[in-house]
Amino acid sequence: MPVATGIGPDELRERRERLHALVAAHRPRGLVVFDQSYVQYLTRFSFLATERPVAYVERFGGETAAFVPEFEVARVRAETGFDRVEPYPEYPGTEHPMRILARLLDDMGITGTIAADQDGYPGILGYRGPSLSEVSGAEVVPAAPALERLMARKSEAEIELVRESARWCEHAHRLLQEYTRPGVTEAQAGLRAGYEASLAMLDALGPSYDGGLSSTDGASAGYRGQIGARSAWAHAIAHNIEFSPGDVLVSETAAPVWGYNAELERAMVVGPPTDEMRRHFDHMCAAQQVAFAALRPGVTCADVDRAVLGYFEEHGILDTWSQHTGHAIGLRNHEAPFLDVGDETVVEPGMVFTIEPGVYVDGFGGFRHSDTVVVRADGIEILTDYPSDLESLTLPL
Amino acid sequence: MPVATGIGPDELRERRERLHALVAAHRPRGLVVFDQSYVQYLTRFSFLATERPVAYVERFGGETAAFVPEFEVARVRAETGFDRVEPYPEYPGTEHPMRILARLLDDMGITGTIAADQDGYPGILGYRGPSLSEVSGAEVVPAAPALERLMARKSEAEIELVRESARWCEHAHRLLQEYTRPGVTEAQAGLRAGYEASLAMLDALGPSYDGGLSSTDGASAGYRGQIGARSAWAHAIAHNIEFSPGDVLVSETAAPVWGYNAELERAMVVGPPTDEMRRHFDHMCAAQQVAFAALRPGVTCADVDRAVLGYFEEHGILDTWSQHTGHAIGLRNHEAPFLDVGDETVVEPGMVFTIEPGVYVDGFGGFRHSDTVVVRADGIEILTDYPSDLESLTLPL
Repeated sequence: MPVATGIGPDELRERRERLHALVAAHRPRGLVVFDQSYVQYLTRFSFLATERPVAYVERFGGETAAFVPEFEVARVRAETGFDRVEPYPEYPGTEHPMRILARLLDDMGITGTIAADQDGYPGILGYRGPSLSEVSGAEVVPAAPALERLMARKSEAEIELVRESARWCEHAHRLLQEYTRPGVTEAQAGLRAGYEASLAMLDALGPSYDGGLSSTDGASAGYRGQIGARSAWAHAIAHNIEFSPGDVLVSETAAPVWGYNAELERAMVVGPPTDEMRRHFDHMCAAQQVAFAALRPGVTCADVDRAVLGYFEEHGILDTWSQHTGHAIGLRNHEAPFLDVGDETVVEPGMVFTIEPGVYVDGFGGFRHSDTVVVRADGIEILTDYPSDLESLTLPL
Repeated sequence: MPVATGIGPDELRERRERLHALVAAHRPRGLVVFDQSYVQYLTRFSFLATERPVAYVERFGGETAAFVPEFEVARVRAETGFDRVEPYPEYPGTEHPMRILARLLDDMGITGTIAADQDGYPGILGYRGPSLSEVSGAEVVPAAPALERLMARKSEAEIELVRESARWCEHAHRLLQEYTRPGVTEAQAGLRAGYEASLAMLDALGPSYDGGLSSTDGASAGYRGQIGARSAWAHAIAHNIEFSPGDVLVSETAAPVWGYNAELERAMVVGPPTDEMRRHFDHMCAAQQVAFAALRPGVTCADVDRAVLGYFEEHGILDTWSQHTGHAIGLRNHEAPFLDVGDETVVEPGMVFTIEPGVYVDGFGGFRHSDTVVVRADGIEILTDYPSDLESLTLPL
C-alpha cells in the first residue's frame, strides 16, 4: 500500500544494500550523504534544506545516523528509525558543524575511505564550510553516480506513487481548464484550481498522506506565464496575465505523493483554433507519438530523441524545435537520464520519463504536451490519463 | 518606485561596479556567475534553475552576456538588456554546454583569471559536468564572499521591497488567523488564506508586479506542521493536522515582491492559554525584545545572539533554547550573516534580519515570533507590523 504509507522499510534497506554493492570497489568504510533527495531516497527522512548542514551517515554493515541541528533532534527521533541521532548546537556556531561531523565519523569507525555524494555540504543560503575530506582526513569517493543509477530504475511501489501523483495532476488540470476563460487571470485560474484540487486530494488520501516535500502538500496547476506569444518560451515566468480569445496556452501541474512526482502539461487554445495553430498542434502530437513508439528497453535515451528530431527534420519544422524529448522523473521533478541526443544511457524497464517534445513558433506560440510514462518489458505504459486532442483542449470563449 | 517596477538599472550597474572593485585585487578579466540568486542580484534576470546550466558572464569594463539553453533565447532577449545572449542547443547535448561556455569566454577576452561564484555549475537535478577551470584553463578566483557581502547591506529600494513583502505577509497572516479554528485542518486554513491573500496582492500591486521567483506569484501562509506538541519542532513538516482546543501553533508566511522577502511568524494558542503556555510565551516575547535592543550598528552578530542566550541563562530556561536569534533575509529567505554566537560579522546600517528567538518545550509546544527588521544609524526599524501579545494571538474555540 505505498499510496497510503509511502515506501516501506524493506525497500529502503534494499536500496542501501544496492548502493553499498555499487560503491564497494573503492572499499569505503561508510557513507555520508548531504543532498536532500538522496537522503530521502535512502531513508525516507525529509527535511528543509537550509544553511544548516544535515547528513545521513552509515557505517557499511553497521550503524546508521542522522546528523542534524539540535532543533531537529526531537522530530527525527519521533519520525524516523536511525540508530543514532547526532546533533550539533547551531550553524555557524562556535565550532563548525563539519568538525563535529568529523568526530561522529571517527566514533562510528568511518575512517580511511568514505563514499559521499559530494565532498561537503553545498553552499546554499549563505552556508560556508570546509570539505568533508579536509575535516575527516579521509579519501572521499563519489557515491552520486551510483545513487543516480539506482534512482533511475523505479520499483513497482515507486511507480504506484507516481501513478497516484498523476491522478491528482489530472484532477488539478481539469479544474484549471474549467477556470481558464477570457478575462480571467493566470493567478485566478491557477490558484483556484490548486486550492480546490489540494483539498480534494488531502480529503481523498486521508491523514496518513504526506507530500514528502516540506512546506506544502497537495496539488498545483497553472501556466507559469506560458500564455499567448509567451507560450513559445519553454521556461517563461508567471506575470499574472489575463487570458484573451486566441491565446495559445501551455499548462503545468504538480502533486507530490510521499515525495514522488508525475508531470502533466497540455497545450490549449482559447476559442476556436486557427489553421496555423492546428498545424503546429498536430505536429506536436505526432512528435509525441514518435517518442512513445521509440521508447522501449534496450534502446538508448539518445535514440528516442533522435527519432523525434527525425520527425522534425522530415517535416521541415526544425526551426520550431527548441528542447529535447524529456527527462526522468521521480523524487525530483527533473532527474537523469535525459531523452536527449547526448545521453547514451540504455533504457531499462522501470525507468519513468516525461515525454514532452515541443513545437515553438517565436512571436506566435508554443505547443507542448507532457505525459509521464514508465518503461515496461515490451514498451511503455502511460501513467498520465488526460485528453490530448485539440477539440478537448479548446476552451470556450 | 521600486514596488511598482523592482530594482532599477542604475542600482544594478552600481552593484556590478562594487563587485568588480571587491574582487579587483586578483586582477580577473571578467566574471562568471551560476547561482540563480546571485544572477538575479546583479542583473535582475530570473530563471528556473534546472539541470540546464545558465550563467551570467561579464568582461570587466566591457560586454555582458547571458549564457542560456536555446529555448530561453527569445525570452531573455525580450525581458533583459544583456549585450549578448549566447545559447547552447540543449543539456546534455552532443557537446557539453560548459565547452561552449569556454568558447564564449575566449571570444569575450575573458582569459587568464576569472572571478566566479563557484568553479562550475552546481550538480542540481542530475546535472554533471566539468569545472570552469578545467574547460577554460583559467585560474578561478572566488566571487561568492564579495557577493554575500554586497547583498547583506540593502539599499533603500531593497528595503522598500522587503517592506511591501511584509505588508502582504501581514494580510495573509490575518486571514490565516481568521480561518484557524478547532476542526479545521492546516491545509484548509493555509490554502484558503494563501489563495485569498494572493488574489488581493495581485489586484493591489497591478500588472507590473512580479514575484521574481519563477513559478508562483503572491502570498502564502500556513503552519508547516507546527501544531500542538509538534510546534516544538522548529522545522516540522506539513501533515494536514486538524486544529484542536489547547493547541499551541507557530505560523509562517511568505510574499515575494520582485524577488524580495520579509518573514512574519507568530506563536498562537487555540482557546484560552494555560499558565504554562503564558509563561513560555512571555519569555519568548522578552527574548525578542532583548534582541531588538541589542541590534544596532557596530555590535557583532554574535553579540546579539549572546544577549539573547544571556536572557535564557538568567531566567534558567536554557533547556528550552534550540536555535539562534535570526538570519539575514532579502532575495533569499535565509541569507548570511546569521545572528549566531559563531558569526563575528559587524552589524551595519541597511542590514535586514529576522528576529526570532524561540522557546521550545519538548512534548508540549514551541513559541516563536519572527519579525523582520532593518538596521538604521541609531538602532532598528521593524518592517513587519502585526500584534505580538498573547491576547491578540489567542484564537476563539
